[in-house]
Amino acid sequence: MKGNIIVGQSGGPTAVINASVAGVFSAAKKLGVNKIYGMVHGIQGFLEENIVDLREQIQDETDIELLKRTPSAFLGSCRYKLPKVEANEAVYEKIFAILEKYDIECLFYCGGNDSMDTIKMLSDYAVSKGKSQRFVGVPKTIDNDLPITDHCPGYGSAAKYIATSIKEIIRDNESFGVEKPTICIVEIMGRHAGWLTAAAALAKGEDCSGVDAIYLPEKIFDMDLFMKKVKELAASKSSVVIAVSEGVSMADGRFVCELGNASDFVDAFGHKQLSGCAVTLANKVAAETGLKTRAIEFSTLQRAATHMASLTDINEAFQVGNDAVLAAEEGKTGMMITLDRNGDSPYECGTSAYDIHAIANVERPVPAEWITEDGTGLNEGYEKYARPLIMGELQPLMVNGLPRHLVLKTK
Amino acid sequence: MKGNIIVGQSGGPTAVINASVAGVFSAAKKLGVNKIYGMVHGIQGFLEENIVDLREQIQDETDIELLKRTPSAFLGSCRYKLPKVEANEAVYEKIFAILEKYDIECLFYCGGNDSMDTIKMLSDYAVSKGKSQRFVGVPKTIDNDLPITDHCPGYGSAAKYIATSIKEIIRDNESFGVEKPTICIVEIMGRHAGWLTAAAALAKGEDCSGVDAIYLPEKIFDMDLFMKKVKELAASKSSVVIAVSEGVSMADGRFVCELGNASDFVDAFGHKQLSGCAVTLANKVAAETGLKTRAIEFSTLQRAATHMASLTDINEAFQVGNDAVLAAEEGKTGMMITLDRNGDSPYECGTSAYDIHAIANVERPVPAEWITEDGTGLNEGYEKYARPLIMGELQPLMVNGLPRHLVLKTK
Repeated sequence: MKGNIIVGQSGGPTAVINASVAGVFSAAKKLGVNKIYGMVHGIQGFLEENIVDLREQIQDETDIELLKRTPSAFLGSCRYKLPKVEANEAVYEKIFAILEKYDIECLFYCGGNDSMDTIKMLSDYAVSKGKSQRFVGVPKTIDNDLPITDHCPGYGSAAKYIATSIKEIIRDNESFGVEKPTICIVEIMGRHAGWLTAAAALAKGEDCSGVDAIYLPEKIFDMDLFMKKVKELAASKSSVVIAVSEGVSMADGRFVCELGNASDFVDAFGHKQLSGCAVTLANKVAAETGLKTRAIEFSTLQRAATHMASLTDINEAFQVGNDAVLAAEEGKTGMMITLDRNGDSPYECGTSAYDIHAIANVERPVPAEWITEDGTGLNEGYEKYARPLIMGELQPLMVNGLPRHLVLKTK
Repeated sequence: MKGNIIVGQSGGPTAVINASVAGVFSAAKKLGVNKIYGMVHGIQGFLEENIVDLREQIQDETDIELLKRTPSAFLGSCRYKLPKVEANEAVYEKIFAILEKYDIECLFYCGGNDSMDTIKMLSDYAVSKGKSQRFVGVPKTIDNDLPITDHCPGYGSAAKYIATSIKEIIRDNESFGVEKPTICIVEIMGRHAGWLTAAAALAKGEDCSGVDAIYLPEKIFDMDLFMKKVKELAASKSSVVIAVSEGVSMADGRFVCELGNASDFVDAFGHKQLSGCAVTLANKVAAETGLKTRAIEFSTLQRAATHMASLTDINEAFQVGNDAVLAAEEGKTGMMITLDRNGDSPYECGTSAYDIHAIANVERPVPAEWITEDGTGLNEGYEKYARPLIMGELQPLMVNGLPRHLVLKTK
């Protein structure tokens, strides 16, 4: 590669998104790329030429190891949605002018659905205008909802944190052996896809009876059936723990949280702001049954808990970053690196580069065949899929009793 | 010791309360105590003779190690408050009858303020009736509010989890470099004492700018000053993270959460049920400033996260259990084991047995001299006190990607 490269991060951070930056950096360094740039706060910062030289940021192998152990976006993230080319060509011209100014041959973008849309639009624009720059997407999303790829870097670590915390919550909730159980409702991220909430199923094992019910957004939420289930559980158990996705909605299309929360906020992508689904349900259960309830939201903890990251996930996040550079080196553009599972036992996973047009803006839900018949659990199909993704640990580097992170040096 | 012993757990669980049971068990085993009993669900279960033989539960040194890594109360907990002797002598007679039936010479109770009250009342009763059984308290509370002892087992691990999670939350919140900051308000446990919330101060370091303000229940919460502070921070920073205790209250005596939550629930001890302080403040900030806000509650995660426990804390929790048995062996009763700090650098801590009458029902707040003048931070006095308590880790035993716990075998 004669020109320079740049890497950026976009969308909600994950515990391992920086391992992908480490992968991009390592591969580019190995290829002898001259300048390895990072865009600060994604395309939004790039448009303001907020650009750093990654060789100044990542100075040795210790920094690489620290970067792998650093949560959230090391380079900063953004939720900037690139406008459509029509009537917005100036934005595209500006982006390509900056690419030319810095002699950037390849741009790598770590993100989920919206970020892959950015890769698609930039690569399409380059092709249509006969420009030579290449654009490759690096998958990243705790939501695990990108299509084609077997799974998304970030998911395994979030799932490991969720299952670990659920085990601890169940033990805590079980510790009081009173006549009336406490009903604990745990709200987990996931607007349209229930992958993260499904991870609650992984808590079950020899030493844990598991959660009592799991509600995914893939299934219509029936309040009457939910209340019936809670009452049945409460009658037979001294502890009830239920996992529910923030995005569960009812037959009339309303989100469950809307029952307790009339907010109409939307985020920059036009997504409705959701919160308080667990609180809504906990209040309803308390009011109707008189039982003690507790609502727990994992909130951003679930996407930032690098201290409980999956080594498998960290390694794969590094690999997709590395392989994005190799794909670009081969001349590929308008592609995303996918993780391709080759085996379950032993687990084996390779990568390939896949046409971004089949990926951008497509959301993959949890397959219906992995959801139990009554819609409140996951079967062994999910277990087989997800268990390998949470395996292994990378010990945090502990300094003064806390995990140490790598920090972006700004001028 | 000729007779048998029994150990129980009471009150809110911690990440290390089982290390204390391991300490009691190990010491008793070493002394050759015949039967080492555990009461299931504390005194409440004991009254129903819900008693297990700990030699059947903890079979080898691997089980001891697993027990140290098991969160929440291994034996089960309770919130049963022993009634006053007057007009309730039957309860006391029943307890002593069960002690005699099982030939129990010493009773050890792991807990906080209310549990130490139980030890006091039982030992007082024994003395007044000329009974020979001895009662020793084993301190345990994430709240760290027991007097006399330098600190309480359970606190160091909760503080380590809180500081670790706060670091991750700050990174997550900082990742979006938008013009308007997100105001993140983190609610931490602590009804009357701000020890846990103070732990947010430990996040600050070379790699973390720390939280922007800390509100403890030791200081009267002034809503106007809070809003002024938030607006100032929002004007100068792209990320604002504030830690607030669930128990902060205003000059008129109302809890902050009451502004958003009219609930009048009280728990079995007559404590007002608190929740939603962060939500209340986040909603107020959003309404008055138009800024995006996020409320995060650590909830029971902070008392159950053995996966991020402090080794110092685990070792001390084990030690106080061990030393409670040695104290009873020396004939002591009506005592609690205290942790006595002998040095900060290097940190050194011993134990002694202290008269329970000076401890039960006394709450120790965060010293005023450790709180900064404006009441929104902690100074180096707290840092010096707390940092040693979060040092060190005990790796979880990972099975199938998740921490393994020891489970009580029931018939």
